[in-house]
Amino acid sequence: MFRTAELGQKIPKSEYRQREPVLRQELLEAQANLVEAGEFPVIVLCAGVDGAGKGETVNLLNEWMDPRLLLTRAYDKPSEEEQERPEYWRFWRDLPPKGRIGLYQYAWYAGPVHDRLYEKDSAATFDDRLMRCHAFEEALTEGGALIIKFWLHLSRAEQKKSFKKLEKDPLTKWRVTRQDWDHWRRYDEIEAVVERAIMRTSTGRAPWNIVEGVDPNYRSLTVGTTIRDAIRKHADEFSARQKLREVLASPPPATDPGEPSPATVLSGLDMSLTLSRKDYREQLGEWQGKLNRLHRKALKKKLSTILLFEGPDAAGKGGAIRRITAALDARHYEVIPIAAPTDEERAQHYLWRFWRQLSRAGRVTIFDRSWYGRVLVERVEGFAAEDEWRRAYAEINEFEEQLTEHGILLVKYWVHIDSEEQLERFKARELIPYKSWKLTGEDWRNREKSDAYGQAVNDIVEHTSMQAAPWTIVEGNDKHFARIKVLKTLCNRLEAVLKNGGKD
Amino acid sequence: MFRTAELGQKIPKSEYRQREPVLRQELLEAQANLVEAGEFPVIVLCAGVDGAGKGETVNLLNEWMDPRLLLTRAYDKPSEEEQERPEYWRFWRDLPPKGRIGLYQYAWYAGPVHDRLYEKDSAATFDDRLMRCHAFEEALTEGGALIIKFWLHLSRAEQKKSFKKLEKDPLTKWRVTRQDWDHWRRYDEIEAVVERAIMRTSTGRAPWNIVEGVDPNYRSLTVGTTIRDAIRKHADEFSARQKLREVLASPPPATDPGEPSPATVLSGLDMSLTLSRKDYREQLGEWQGKLNRLHRKALKKKLSTILLFEGPDAAGKGGAIRRITAALDARHYEVIPIAAPTDEERAQHYLWRFWRQLSRAGRVTIFDRSWYGRVLVERVEGFAAEDEWRRAYAEINEFEEQLTEHGILLVKYWVHIDSEEQLERFKARELIPYKSWKLTGEDWRNREKSDAYGQAVNDIVEHTSMQAAPWTIVEGNDKHFARIKVLKTLCNRLEAVLKNGGKD
Repeated sequence: MFRTAELGQKIPKSEYRQREPVLRQELLEAQANLVEAGEFPVIVLCAGVDGAGKGETVNLLNEWMDPRLLLTRAYDKPSEEEQERPEYWRFWRDLPPKGRIGLYQYAWYAGPVHDRLYEKDSAATFDDRLMRCHAFEEALTEGGALIIKFWLHLSRAEQKKSFKKLEKDPLTKWRVTRQDWDHWRRYDEIEAVVERAIMRTSTGRAPWNIVEGVDPNYRSLTVGTTIRDAIRKHADEFSARQKLREVLASPPPATDPGEPSPATVLSGLDMSLTLSRKDYREQLGEWQGKLNRLHRKALKKKLSTILLFEGPDAAGKGGAIRRITAALDARHYEVIPIAAPTDEERAQHYLWRFWRQLSRAGRVTIFDRSWYGRVLVERVEGFAAEDEWRRAYAEINEFEEQLTEHGILLVKYWVHIDSEEQLERFKARELIPYKSWKLTGEDWRNREKSDAYGQAVNDIVEHTSMQAAPWTIVEGNDKHFARIKVLKTLCNRLEAVLKNGGKD
Repeated sequence: MFRTAELGQKIPKSEYRQREPVLRQELLEAQANLVEAGEFPVIVLCAGVDGAGKGETVNLLNEWMDPRLLLTRAYDKPSEEEQERPEYWRFWRDLPPKGRIGLYQYAWYAGPVHDRLYEKDSAATFDDRLMRCHAFEEALTEGGALIIKFWLHLSRAEQKKSFKKLEKDPLTKWRVTRQDWDHWRRYDEIEAVVERAIMRTSTGRAPWNIVEGVDPNYRSLTVGTTIRDAIRKHADEFSARQKLREVLASPPPATDPGEPSPATVLSGLDMSLTLSRKDYREQLGEWQGKLNRLHRKALKKKLSTILLFEGPDAAGKGGAIRRITAALDARHYEVIPIAAPTDEERAQHYLWRFWRQLSRAGRVTIFDRSWYGRVLVERVEGFAAEDEWRRAYAEINEFEEQLTEHGILLVKYWVHIDSEEQLERFKARELIPYKSWKLTGEDWRNREKSDAYGQAVNDIVEHTSMQAAPWTIVEGNDKHFARIKVLKTLCNRLEAVLKNGGKD
């Protein structure tokens, strides 16, 4: 498949001198338009055969464009910091915000290709990991990003020539390593693995561009014009797609009003469950003590825990969280309240703000509201278009799978209270927004919203309950009962995982 | 994850009696609109726990809708006929045309789930096969199809109840088999496998609907309203998406006219290669004899071969094909000339017409033009929108991978001639379309088209050269040289595969 990059493409110096300044001007303009519109990020990924000019290309683009608006990253073996998080943590962390261009070398492809070659991952495992590259890129492009991938190619003979030439010059001799020659000897084997990677991840939205790396003039102009054209085209399409989204966001066709809303996981709850004050006091101490012991074990085994709490306002999420943290050492946990995103977060994919919060090994991270906002409030209030929140279930499963595969224990709670109890609590807090709420509790609009939330929660439980990441629904009308159920669930999951040597 | 389908959903008889006739009327209307618009096919897939009412649901839909416009299929173990083709052959064969509804039970999910449970496929292999389900559905939905998937659920206790009830009645006793009870005993194990399948293939475009199967009234109305709403919504969205496609089909932004078109795999060919008449005569007999011997071996080993020929008009594809078939027994090969699609083919996904042509084991199928039309003539002449042909590379790779994984030898030829030679041949045939062609051979528009085709061929070679399905580019200005290269390539590939015990 690399034949198209072994044609001996060349651009003479005179032509290059003529075209280069024009192209640089156009690239700067494209970059300026991109920043001004601030609509989408651009991800440029450079990979290729050793000696084909990956590094040179990245340097050149930094020279041609405004480097202050570029984000350039190369990745080495994961650091200790990085190893304590899932593989994609560092890639998410380094994504460019809307309007910016990120320049990467190899990045998420390095691991799968390396491990197939050196660690002898099976073909099926390799394919699985390539699917993860694909899913990552798909989540980004679906979120509006433009992804441009380059594979710079040299034939086996040209690679040898390139190394020899570098070795001849005392100033560049050091650049050719023993590993380079080792790779050259394994050329065919490596090519087969790379070919598979490219084939599996070259999609309509994020295709690979194979570029002949022999002639620097040809390589540079080809990469430059490809980026220029892709940005122009994406900008045009972006507005067209936005318009489509608006059309699709129109409400679904009205259904027969004679059809009552079906039962949901919430409507089936026994909201009368209670725990007496005396029993509560007793059990609280007991479970907190147990949690403390279990967490110290987890810390030793570097087992991280992520808890997340969702539920209506005033359901008692905060109270339940405080009963957990009371049992932990303050150095080992973090509570992250999720409110409206910051400007910086708004300029990124909606999952970015959660990826950045993943803590080091052994810690407990507690999210007070979470990534489920996408399929709860954003869905019900219409902030996300239907295609966006429908897609989100798969994106969330992919995210959570990366957490649990990395060995993180993930515990998800929906703490529930019914409308009557909620009203009581608002009253008690003297927080009732009198204007929009009808105190009768019979207000039709209000009931409709609560139906919509019920349906949304039902869909969440249906679509995002992977075996390693189940939902716990907590009957929250009685705070005592709720808090104990929360603690007990956490202790049981922790205990099971620790028994299992860190596997859920 | 099946908790949402263990809520004890029930619809009382009186309510059912009221709603059923309304729903039936609406379904009939939706079906009539679908047929009249003829825009897209609908694929309804029913799967679920034994005893949860899969069969009943399919029967009911046949009763409620116009059965003449429905296509109902259930699949048993593959027949001998089916085993001789790739796994998905029978599913492609049975797809409904635009405007029709296809009703399927389990279908493409049966194999992966069964083999994970009984043949102990590894987790990675299971995931790989689920990705194939996903890719299949994605190709269909990207092509415009609506896919609605139902999983009918029963809890373990409810399943037992259901079996006991059937066994009590002498008229239905026979329906409960030993296998049913065996499945019941393995309930948890099966549930885990199914859960994985559903999670991995529940996408925004083709989500699974989990339906509680205990109460037939609830189950029937839920399935019916889901289908009704999905069809209505898809019809609305279909036109919005069409409009977007028109916008996206607009030509890309003009590029700098100072940029010459780069070299392609075609521009690098040595078109002066020839073979003398004497050498040709000699070698022709030799290679044809060899081909005959190799094919008889292949037939014995049930090794199928698919050849495809692409190239400009008058390149000599037909002549090369005849030199191959001359060496074969007429009972064992088929030549399939691909012209404009028939009405029946136009009402299907563009790959459908090729899937249906796959022959039984041991045969040779020769396509004179092929599925590459999508990324050649349809791309260059603007019959396919850019997003359609860009996506096609991955779809074609997926298709060809299924062929080669099944053990089929796939040999792909681009037979090339240059414009001058083509003109000569047209003249010789007295077939020159004087009106649109300028005899000077300098006509600009003509040259531009030839550039566009050159780029298209280059992209094909770049994107669709999986290791097991490489392209052979044949220098065709000299017919003798071309025919021998075609025969030689085929013999060498056949020989290599036969040596390798049927593996390429």
